[in-house]
Amino acid sequence: MTIRAGVLGATGYAGVELCRLLLRHPDAQPTAVGSVSFEGKKLYEVYPNLRELCGLECEGADAVIAASDVVFAALPHGLSQETAAACAAQGKKFIDLGADFRLDDPEEYVRWYGCEVIHPDLHRRAVYGLPELFREQIRGTDIVGNPGCYPTSVALGLAPALRAGAVETEGIVVDAKSGVTGAGRKPAQNTHFPDCNEAFSAYKVASHRHTPEIEQTLSTVAGQRATVTFVPHLLPVNRGILSTIYARRRPGFDLPRIRQLYEEAYRDEFFVRLPPEGTPVNLRDVRCSNFCDIQLYGDEHTGLLIVTSVIDNMVKGAAGQAIQNMNLLFGLPETAGLDMIPPAF
Amino acid sequence: MTIRAGVLGATGYAGVELCRLLLRHPDAQPTAVGSVSFEGKKLYEVYPNLRELCGLECEGADAVIAASDVVFAALPHGLSQETAAACAAQGKKFIDLGADFRLDDPEEYVRWYGCEVIHPDLHRRAVYGLPELFREQIRGTDIVGNPGCYPTSVALGLAPALRAGAVETEGIVVDAKSGVTGAGRKPAQNTHFPDCNEAFSAYKVASHRHTPEIEQTLSTVAGQRATVTFVPHLLPVNRGILSTIYARRRPGFDLPRIRQLYEEAYRDEFFVRLPPEGTPVNLRDVRCSNFCDIQLYGDEHTGLLIVTSVIDNMVKGAAGQAIQNMNLLFGLPETAGLDMIPPAF
Amino acid sequence: MTIRAGVLGATGYAGVELCRLLLRHPDAQPTAVGSVSFEGKKLYEVYPNLRELCGLECEGADAVIAASDVVFAALPHGLSQETAAACAAQGKKFIDLGADFRLDDPEEYVRWYGCEVIHPDLHRRAVYGLPELFREQIRGTDIVGNPGCYPTSVALGLAPALRAGAVETEGIVVDAKSGVTGAGRKPAQNTHFPDCNEAFSAYKVASHRHTPEIEQTLSTVAGQRATVTFVPHLLPVNRGILSTIYARRRPGFDLPRIRQLYEEAYRDEFFVRLPPEGTPVNLRDVRCSNFCDIQLYGDEHTGLLIVTSVIDNMVKGAAGQAIQNMNLLFGLPETAGLDMIPPAF
Amino acid sequence: MTIRAGVLGATGYAGVELCRLLLRHPDAQPTAVGSVSFEGKKLYEVYPNLRELCGLECEGADAVIAASDVVFAALPHGLSQETAAACAAQGKKFIDLGADFRLDDPEEYVRWYGCEVIHPDLHRRAVYGLPELFREQIRGTDIVGNPGCYPTSVALGLAPALRAGAVETEGIVVDAKSGVTGAGRKPAQNTHFPDCNEAFSAYKVASHRHTPEIEQTLSTVAGQRATVTFVPHLLPVNRGILSTIYARRRPGFDLPRIRQLYEEAYRDEFFVRLPPEGTPVNLRDVRCSNFCDIQLYGDEHTGLLIVTSVIDNMVKGAAGQAIQNMNLLFGLPETAGLDMIPPAF
Repeated sequence: MTIRAGVLGATGYAGVELCRLLLRHPDAQPTAVGSVSFEGKKLYEVYPNLRELCGLECEGADAVIAASDVVFAALPHGLSQETAAACAAQGKKFIDLGADFRLDDPEEYVRWYGCEVIHPDLHRRAVYGLPELFREQIRGTDIVGNPGCYPTSVALGLAPALRAGAVETEGIVVDAKSGVTGAGRKPAQNTHFPDCNEAFSAYKVASHRHTPEIEQTLSTVAGQRATVTFVPHLLPVNRGILSTIYARRRPGFDLPRIRQLYEEAYRDEFFVRLPPEGTPVNLRDVRCSNFCDIQLYGDEHTGLLIVTSVIDNMVKGAAGQAIQNMNLLFGLPETAGLDMIPPAF
Repeated sequence: MTIRAGVLGATGYAGVELCRLLLRHPDAQPTAVGSVSFEGKKLYEVYPNLRELCGLECEGADAVIAASDVVFAALPHGLSQETAAACAAQGKKFIDLGADFRLDDPEEYVRWYGCEVIHPDLHRRAVYGLPELFREQIRGTDIVGNPGCYPTSVALGLAPALRAGAVETEGIVVDAKSGVTGAGRKPAQNTHFPDCNEAFSAYKVASHRHTPEIEQTLSTVAGQRATVTFVPHLLPVNRGILSTIYARRRPGFDLPRIRQLYEEAYRDEFFVRLPPEGTPVNLRDVRCSNFCDIQLYGDEHTGLLIVTSVIDNMVKGAAGQAIQNMNLLFGLPETAGLDMIPPAF
Repeated sequence: MTIRAGVLGATGYAGVELCRLLLRHPDAQPTAVGSVSFEGKKLYEVYPNLRELCGLECEGADAVIAASDVVFAALPHGLSQETAAACAAQGKKFIDLGADFRLDDPEEYVRWYGCEVIHPDLHRRAVYGLPELFREQIRGTDIVGNPGCYPTSVALGLAPALRAGAVETEGIVVDAKSGVTGAGRKPAQNTHFPDCNEAFSAYKVASHRHTPEIEQTLSTVAGQRATVTFVPHLLPVNRGILSTIYARRRPGFDLPRIRQLYEEAYRDEFFVRLPPEGTPVNLRDVRCSNFCDIQLYGDEHTGLLIVTSVIDNMVKGAAGQAIQNMNLLFGLPETAGLDMIPPAF
Repeated sequence: MTIRAGVLGATGYAGVELCRLLLRHPDAQPTAVGSVSFEGKKLYEVYPNLRELCGLECEGADAVIAASDVVFAALPHGLSQETAAACAAQGKKFIDLGADFRLDDPEEYVRWYGCEVIHPDLHRRAVYGLPELFREQIRGTDIVGNPGCYPTSVALGLAPALRAGAVETEGIVVDAKSGVTGAGRKPAQNTHFPDCNEAFSAYKVASHRHTPEIEQTLSTVAGQRATVTFVPHLLPVNRGILSTIYARRRPGFDLPRIRQLYEEAYRDEFFVRLPPEGTPVNLRDVRCSNFCDIQLYGDEHTGLLIVTSVIDNMVKGAAGQAIQNMNLLFGLPETAGLDMIPPAF
């Protein structure tokens, strides 16, 4: 039986990518799409790449929820909580691509997003949807907070080292670079082509909202408080995130030993690939796919572990991971609908 | 039973795209790949996007042919003829992505490519593999000359008008723009990033080898000799071709009538899409897919028909169309393995 | 004595480029800048590249006019006429980078721009500022209509052939491609980085407002009515226009003879360069400069003359040409302040 | 009297940029250019942007030295030492854009570059040409080792903090991103347009040859041994470097105090700009100029100082700084020939 998937915020970049992937899912189909800005319009009128491939028309949220077994919300933060409540009331599963269900601590949510937790019970029920780290918890819930794009690349990039105590939990530096789709579909001056092309800069230095989310996951995995200096940059490409992560190795953990930890941790993870030593990872090699490629380096000179981790910000960093979570919620093979091979160019 | 597909020239851009698509084909699989430059290497060592997704190792041509039911050759011109002969001798189907089997007239082949036709019988047996125009002939052969990228965009863009006599067959101007993958994988000065980025120029003006191929198809469709001025340009994007085509309308053929001709011609063609009047086609909307999007304009001022036609040069212009031809040769649904949805970004 | 130059619309792309060039002009300086959107702000607050290089603050139009010997207006069409009148009343020279003074025929102006000619006397006094073609007239006026970017590339590309009667004045096709700065500074969906990057499309096909301007100049030069099919495309680069122009050669005009016409016409023109036969022109080679590079081709097959003409749309296509006109108005060497060497990359 | 400047390696990217800038220098001119690959060719035949602007023909090294008062060498490492000796013998000043005269310690040079110091006396005489830090020493020499591009951005970015003891000299992390011109003019697979466009990766992680150069300058400035983890990345733009630098603040040095240190250090430095707090620096804003823009951030959470520093890798990171050094050697104003205003787009 085909799962009926509803997508709210379908005309945003994450939303339309979700629709695109769901259209080729063997066990699910997008059955209703919601959009405030384009209600009444066909999705393909907004995204002509979908012409003749998707006849869905944008509807209001209630209609989308009613028509769905699972609802994905790709909405600005603050707007997902009532949707989650409506889904819970109607017994529908809910996967939030926004930030409303990512932070465990309601106070952190208030501090970073300026929004209140309205339904503490739902908030507690929600599971942070990073399957490679929290697979079992995800299987047991019906509300998923889908991770942010940067946090996904960082958590997968550091988890094996932190879990084994191979690196210090303080002084971690994350220098991350994201393609422009990360800024969303709405035109703005800094994403206007001539301002953005042949340009590069840091933004929200040490003040990006993904910081507490990154620290939360790293702390959970390490079993102790981890602190991170997080600096994102805007990269003049459409898709992809590369995070370069610096952490101090603890005594006894040389690079071969750390490499072994990663190989063990990800041996059975289809979506995490570890190229051989010395082969750099490139965001090109994961575009349009749900893969996370990770490479490790040791700076013998300074004792640091350096991790480079790449994902497609719109797939493993958003829509693809959301589908991976859906697969878990419904007991499907985790790779269902996610076997896209990244193009070489 | 899964069709065993061999790919010669697998480490070129068209070759690796073919492998990528074949890996997700429901009824075929790449079983052997050939490469002169990388014999003995795994394909994923050359293209790390394929890591853990394809274990094939590059072999010599004989081994590839022996292991295959159908052989695709993505080789420099002149090298496919002996391969075709070997396939014919062993009863294997052959699809040439190069130019050796595209031109009917052996003298044109000599003139434009400087190569001789070695096996006139095979040359005669070969069918020009543009399914939307020559579907029945393709079904009846075992040697296909897969069309060039530019000719595909032009032929689909003009065929309905020429077939109906709606435009003059002389004075056609094709101003075409192609992404850089069209120049192949081998680095060169004009495709070096800093030389190519933020740059744009015409090349091989009125002297490109695709000219006789374009004229051949247009003449066939029109039923009379068609002549074309063809000017290609190098576009600083990875993928895609947009051809802007100018032809003089004949009396009685206004734009609505011509539009109707196109709608009738392509009504049942899955891979040709005609957006509504006034909606421009964009090469972005067909990337990574086998679609050809076409838009028509009338210049009332000068009486011209203007056609804009976009394809992905590596899919409908190479690997995708080759698979479409394979599907025809083996009696499969024409869209098998080709249902990729172009990404929005 | 330094010429005091005022720039209205200084925070638009053409306006700021004008300021940048004027800041290094040996005989002129920007003394006042106007902006409706940013009045009261320093220009470098809007364009941080100018930090510590230009202390000008955006003012209202009246203040700018009062402080200037010459006023440049880089405003939306319709807004320059009253400014021109104010300048005329105060004895100031006026150079309009918009469209208000380009078309001789007031009715054409109404038809294409939807605006009325308010001051017919000023409109008649204005000269079309393409120095290579109309140098003497420019010297004798005080109101200049600075040409559009596309028309500049086309007029320079065809003038020698048309003037000599070497090509037909009917059936001319102009297939033009422009960088994104041509669309201005204001963000829009089609110039949003992810929509524009790795994309390419035609727009305003056979309906762009530069069409009558192109035809006006070509007709003037040819001495008879010239008609043009004009199709612009949006190119994913910041700067530059390449126009590919197709015209039917008249009997007796083979390529060598036409080439000679161009060499004679442009022998003394510093800003027009004719590379040797066979060397393609590339918009990269004229970026950030006032040059127009032109290459000629003959299609022996079809009898067409093919011209490729490249300029920097923001320099020779806007700010640079405006300064060239200022130099003429003030009796300065025409190249003053315009000797920038285009960077290689 | 105009200084006669010779450029060896003139057909490389740094070499041609040097020629371009020298052509507009008020007190110097390029009088001879050398190239091994293009001897006998005009420079504009290799770089058509220079057509009609530079008639120099590529010659051998001896001829270039003979014709020059100062010789710039933009050569692969190892090749500058004999040139320096020839210049010294003929009393000519010598500025090396390569690495042969950057490292004080001959053993470090051997270790990182695999070359021997041939002329220890010349090597000792050479001064590291970073004018903002070592102006007086440069004035007193005739052999300059022009700094590497990355080291320039890092040294200017950290010097005021290190000199004042505001940050620890250990544990410094430099995450740097460079445009593709940094890889030179020679085509290679990783700089082939389709491989490089829409791509991003780290390279030579913790093993790049600029590491010892960075540490040498930082140690000199700090007055004690400084160690750096240096990770460069390849950015899909033509020009520019952004270095994001992380250092641990020492007690008593909060951000306002550190900012004050920078303002004092760079108050009189024309080429270093410090935008106001919170305004990010962008490599776009320094393109084609000799500026270095620096922004400072404090991570209150972790106690780090974060510095972002941008330069044009080909100007302040190569050709522009070399001219700045020439100006010092000849007693010219330091900004002579270097007053280019970066374009806004």
